[in-house]
Amino acid sequence: MIAYNTKDWLKYIFFFHKSDTIRKLFPLIITISLLTWGVAYIELEYLRLTETSNLRNLNIMHTLLSVVISMLLVFRTNTAYERWWEARKLWGSLVNNSRNLAIKLHAILHEDDAHNRSFIGQCIGLYASALATHLHSEASRLELDEYEHPELASLDEQKHIPNQIAAILFNRINKLYKEGKITGDQLIILNGELLSFAEICGACERIKNTPIPLSYSAFLKKFIFIYSLALPFSLVFSLGYLAIPVVAFIFYVLTSLELIAEEIEDPFGADENDLPTHKIAANIKKQVAEIL
Amino acid sequence: MIAYNTKDWLKYIFFFHKSDTIRKLFPLIITISLLTWGVAYIELEYLRLTETSNLRNLNIMHTLLSVVISMLLVFRTNTAYERWWEARKLWGSLVNNSRNLAIKLHAILHEDDAHNRSFIGQCIGLYASALATHLHSEASRLELDEYEHPELASLDEQKHIPNQIAAILFNRINKLYKEGKITGDQLIILNGELLSFAEICGACERIKNTPIPLSYSAFLKKFIFIYSLALPFSLVFSLGYLAIPVVAFIFYVLTSLELIAEEIEDPFGADENDLPTHKIAANIKKQVAEIL
Amino acid sequence: MIAYNTKDWLKYIFFFHKSDTIRKLFPLIITISLLTWGVAYIELEYLRLTETSNLRNLNIMHTLLSVVISMLLVFRTNTAYERWWEARKLWGSLVNNSRNLAIKLHAILHEDDAHNRSFIGQCIGLYASALATHLHSEASRLELDEYEHPELASLDEQKHIPNQIAAILFNRINKLYKEGKITGDQLIILNGELLSFAEICGACERIKNTPIPLSYSAFLKKFIFIYSLALPFSLVFSLGYLAIPVVAFIFYVLTSLELIAEEIEDPFGADENDLPTHKIAANIKKQVAEIL
Amino acid sequence: MIAYNTKDWLKYIFFFHKSDTIRKLFPLIITISLLTWGVAYIELEYLRLTETSNLRNLNIMHTLLSVVISMLLVFRTNTAYERWWEARKLWGSLVNNSRNLAIKLHAILHEDDAHNRSFIGQCIGLYASALATHLHSEASRLELDEYEHPELASLDEQKHIPNQIAAILFNRINKLYKEGKITGDQLIILNGELLSFAEICGACERIKNTPIPLSYSAFLKKFIFIYSLALPFSLVFSLGYLAIPVVAFIFYVLTSLELIAEEIEDPFGADENDLPTHKIAANIKKQVAEIL
Amino acid sequence: MIAYNTKDWLKYIFFFHKSDTIRKLFPLIITISLLTWGVAYIELEYLRLTETSNLRNLNIMHTLLSVVISMLLVFRTNTAYERWWEARKLWGSLVNNSRNLAIKLHAILHEDDAHNRSFIGQCIGLYASALATHLHSEASRLELDEYEHPELASLDEQKHIPNQIAAILFNRINKLYKEGKITGDQLIILNGELLSFAEICGACERIKNTPIPLSYSAFLKKFIFIYSLALPFSLVFSLGYLAIPVVAFIFYVLTSLELIAEEIEDPFGADENDLPTHKIAANIKKQVAEIL
Repeated sequence: MIAYNTKDWLKYIFFFHKSDTIRKLFPLIITISLLTWGVAYIELEYLRLTETSNLRNLNIMHTLLSVVISMLLVFRTNTAYERWWEARKLWGSLVNNSRNLAIKLHAILHEDDAHNRSFIGQCIGLYASALATHLHSEASRLELDEYEHPELASLDEQKHIPNQIAAILFNRINKLYKEGKITGDQLIILNGELLSFAEICGACERIKNTPIPLSYSAFLKKFIFIYSLALPFSLVFSLGYLAIPVVAFIFYVLTSLELIAEEIEDPFGADENDLPTHKIAANIKKQVAEIL
Repeated sequence: MIAYNTKDWLKYIFFFHKSDTIRKLFPLIITISLLTWGVAYIELEYLRLTETSNLRNLNIMHTLLSVVISMLLVFRTNTAYERWWEARKLWGSLVNNSRNLAIKLHAILHEDDAHNRSFIGQCIGLYASALATHLHSEASRLELDEYEHPELASLDEQKHIPNQIAAILFNRINKLYKEGKITGDQLIILNGELLSFAEICGACERIKNTPIPLSYSAFLKKFIFIYSLALPFSLVFSLGYLAIPVVAFIFYVLTSLELIAEEIEDPFGADENDLPTHKIAANIKKQVAEIL
Repeated sequence: MIAYNTKDWLKYIFFFHKSDTIRKLFPLIITISLLTWGVAYIELEYLRLTETSNLRNLNIMHTLLSVVISMLLVFRTNTAYERWWEARKLWGSLVNNSRNLAIKLHAILHEDDAHNRSFIGQCIGLYASALATHLHSEASRLELDEYEHPELASLDEQKHIPNQIAAILFNRINKLYKEGKITGDQLIILNGELLSFAEICGACERIKNTPIPLSYSAFLKKFIFIYSLALPFSLVFSLGYLAIPVVAFIFYVLTSLELIAEEIEDPFGADENDLPTHKIAANIKKQVAEIL
Repeated sequence: MIAYNTKDWLKYIFFFHKSDTIRKLFPLIITISLLTWGVAYIELEYLRLTETSNLRNLNIMHTLLSVVISMLLVFRTNTAYERWWEARKLWGSLVNNSRNLAIKLHAILHEDDAHNRSFIGQCIGLYASALATHLHSEASRLELDEYEHPELASLDEQKHIPNQIAAILFNRINKLYKEGKITGDQLIILNGELLSFAEICGACERIKNTPIPLSYSAFLKKFIFIYSLALPFSLVFSLGYLAIPVVAFIFYVLTSLELIAEEIEDPFGADENDLPTHKIAANIKKQVAEIL
Repeated sequence: MIAYNTKDWLKYIFFFHKSDTIRKLFPLIITISLLTWGVAYIELEYLRLTETSNLRNLNIMHTLLSVVISMLLVFRTNTAYERWWEARKLWGSLVNNSRNLAIKLHAILHEDDAHNRSFIGQCIGLYASALATHLHSEASRLELDEYEHPELASLDEQKHIPNQIAAILFNRINKLYKEGKITGDQLIILNGELLSFAEICGACERIKNTPIPLSYSAFLKKFIFIYSLALPFSLVFSLGYLAIPVVAFIFYVLTSLELIAEEIEDPFGADENDLPTHKIAANIKKQVAEIL
């Protein structure tokens, strides 16, 4: 993730970062420009279609549909952004919980109890990095898929690592409680943080393994495809060869929105804008070590 | 549910998955295309309506209403998506709670207490699958219907299975508390998970048995129907026979949105995109068995 | 409430349920059709206004305002739907809490303590039906009105029934705690459910006694009224007598949205789509009796 | 606040309540009508601008901007409504908490302990009315202003009244706990309600002292002003003197939305639609007295 | 932050506050006006393009894209506003928690225990101001950046100040618990407030160090830039020199929305509309000192 300066216009208008949609769309924009040129050539030079051709009015279709496609794409991007932001919130909670648990156990455990302090400190730090690794694995993404994935079968054998760590952590806390090193009241106030580890893990898994419904996504792709493909026919009449940049620009705007949505809706992938979970996990490890 | 790759455009533009709206709409799209052809034939070849015919201006109506119908349908799909996503969250919570309860009881119960461990482990696993079955039943969908359903009467006799399991589970926990195997402090920290089972069940039942208000849904269907039926009359003048694919495409876009909404607003049905509750329940069973 | 099948198109396009907005709007649609006929007759046959009349361009106004009126109405309906859905959630919580309280007390109370079991079971069941009755009363709706309501004075004398039942219930629980039949830890885990009764009641009262601000609602009605009244003048020029069905249809769409909003924004009334609170209360009573 | 009947159309179309935006906007509507008349007179009778004047096409600007201004105003009104509704929810919570605290203490305190009962009952009732007064004061609104307010200096000396009452209340509860009149378990279950008083107060203060950012509000006012002022120039060509009512109506719609937003975004003022906090406080006092 | 009067129209239409977008945009508005003049001069006086030039129809592009750009910008501003409002809520919670903690400890600690009272009072006050300072630092903004920041390395050495204070505070509370000055029940009811400090800190850090995804922001800037640059070419034909103010106004509206979003999306900067965190911290210090 890049902590860019949002007020820097020049840089982001004229500079094409590697996650910029223009880079990814470049071949397609060239293709649709050539297509528009071809349509213009045929309609204007070859067929010499007259003013009264019905094709001229095809832009009625684009006008009637422009509100639907605009709203769909803006909502699509917003829904993807909300998933991304929810994932960021979850990792923020992981930071808070790790900190709070460390602060509390630092106060509760006896000053000389270096053994338990370092054990628990390591567990907390390990949980975050194990979760980061778990969420980037292909097996997590396909967990609920309706097809069998024999290629992932060996992974399936393995147990769920973050769960294991959470279980070890709770086990240790409970052992300390039984030994009287933690009182009942202290156990109760530690509960919230202990709970939240599994809750955060579950919520991240949900975002990872549940894309938006396939029928919705497939419909949107078909809609953009047909809408864009019909644009040259509709605009060449009114704009002549000027239609080439116009079609290219409209196509760039519409598909960029869909591309951005696809990039951010799975925040645990390897895209440029995905969450820096390994970096956050390293921060957690550092902060917990500072405290405990 | 299908864990598809959202970045795969070619596949979802040219491939028609069985949940694709084009498949379901195919007969209707053919029908409205034929209708448009008929209207075009009569207006252009038979009646030879002149340029000055008032019918020419009918697209004023479609223009004035295009914002309303677009917004209504996009909001409709979003509301349906939110129901679907809420249901996914609830089942995510069920996973978390089941895990947490297993992790806690694993630590709290005596290592040798295989009897209680396996009993509780089975209860937790059973709850998820009982809930999945309960939510797919017709009786759950019709629970609040204002009409009598004599055909479901025999089912009504049965008690509410998930409730029964939750009661058995709480009973056992409380018994362990009375026997001193669980301390008061431990009982308090188990409370959150025990509570949440019934809360998740209730929230899923709400989504299942409460569709959007009938008057809203009926209005939307009538609106789409009349709007689409008037399209050929409005577009044939400007587009001639070209109106046939245009009407078909607009019709496809509008009704697809409504169809997608209908498919996902009840996430516990048997549609392609419905939640894989039985699969999640199986995962819960497996994970709980791993832990306890 | 009707648990209709949302995928049944034919039935809801051609069948007019008693809550259908077409039924309610029928007289108004006839009126505005006659008005449009009158305007058409006067403009076209009597005044024979020429093409250059400024009235011809009146549809600029409708075009400029079509986005505002569309968004306002769609947001209006959505806000009303959210109130309705919030109310549904609250009654869902009431179901969950009642169940959970019953499950817990079933486990906590001694098996032979039939007296307390039945007393508490009745209280829980009674609360739901008392709340349903309370929310349907006119006094609840007018609680915060700035005018005096002498006609409701006698009701005001009465105490708040759901509050009374909640107080009796908490009293009994506290008595059992003092008698040692409920331990302190158990009292703590019962607290959440006991709290929530009054919270649900308060939230439902808020929805009941606080309509959307009067100035907003009055503005919307005036806006729809003037917009619709100007439609015939604007459309008769372009559409001639064809304007009659067009105006009727646009009027039907716009006012339907407002009518639906009005129907569902108070979910505790006697409208067709209002929540079946008495039915839910009966379900609660049945389920609690099953458990305790 | 007025508990009006939302289904009463006639009354709210033809009756102008004192909070109706038409009343407030009347002078401005007259002004803009006169301005439009002036523009029409000059353009049509004096300058006799020809059909080919560029002014004719000024409505392109209004068309391009109509979506932005519509969305901005509708979102503005919705944001204001959400503030108003959040404030309503907070006062609803105050009612619930006051009730619950009274119900609990009624059960916990000894029946004969009239002294503590009446003391606590009075505190709860007093808190609500002190908060209502606090929120209506000018000092609360300007608390975070970046300018000094010497005219409010004397008020600043005073301590924060609701805080004082909350402190007294908690002090008494804690004293009862120390005296053994409230057990530790009971103290824990009273904590939620005691906490919430300060939370509600803080949230209401936030709504009161934080308007939407100045740059946003100032931009919106400038936008509406210029957009409306350009309307006569744009519409007189197409509509002639008919532009007078059209401009007046469009102006009425746009500014009404902003006016309604301004009225409801501070729900603790003295506007017609502001929340009846003193009335709610009186209800709380009455209900608490009934219970304790 | 300025606690302005939202109903004061005249002042905010004709007065240009230093955070007004017109001030910031002034040079750009002049530039685009000159550009439009140049385009008008060349097209009209030099090239004398005829009516039939295809450039005339370029406004089709602006019409088709006007909905997308409007929705994107309005959603952008709303998302930024939600971040700003969330930050305001977090600081509101900090106020509430500080107050509540002070009220509770005031009651719990022995009246003569001036030492602990003042120590804890200072900690609470210090936390708020340390957090304010922490959030304004450049190191916080760049915490998750993927590039190295050697210039901030010395800061990185320092420990996390707010965390340190929270740890000291919890340490003291736990020490008082061990010494028996705070009972177990009291420890439990203090837990919520102690937790929330780190939660508020983490949530503010999230808002500070996570801007909206770069690809989204870069796309939006490119979109606005190209859209605006094409406006003169599209409008000069229809409007002649009148296009100069029209282009300037449309440009002002669109870029203002983006500028406002940029200003408020990081609420912890030094912009005019950023949150007065130091002022709130001072209020907390004052109120806590009043109570303890």
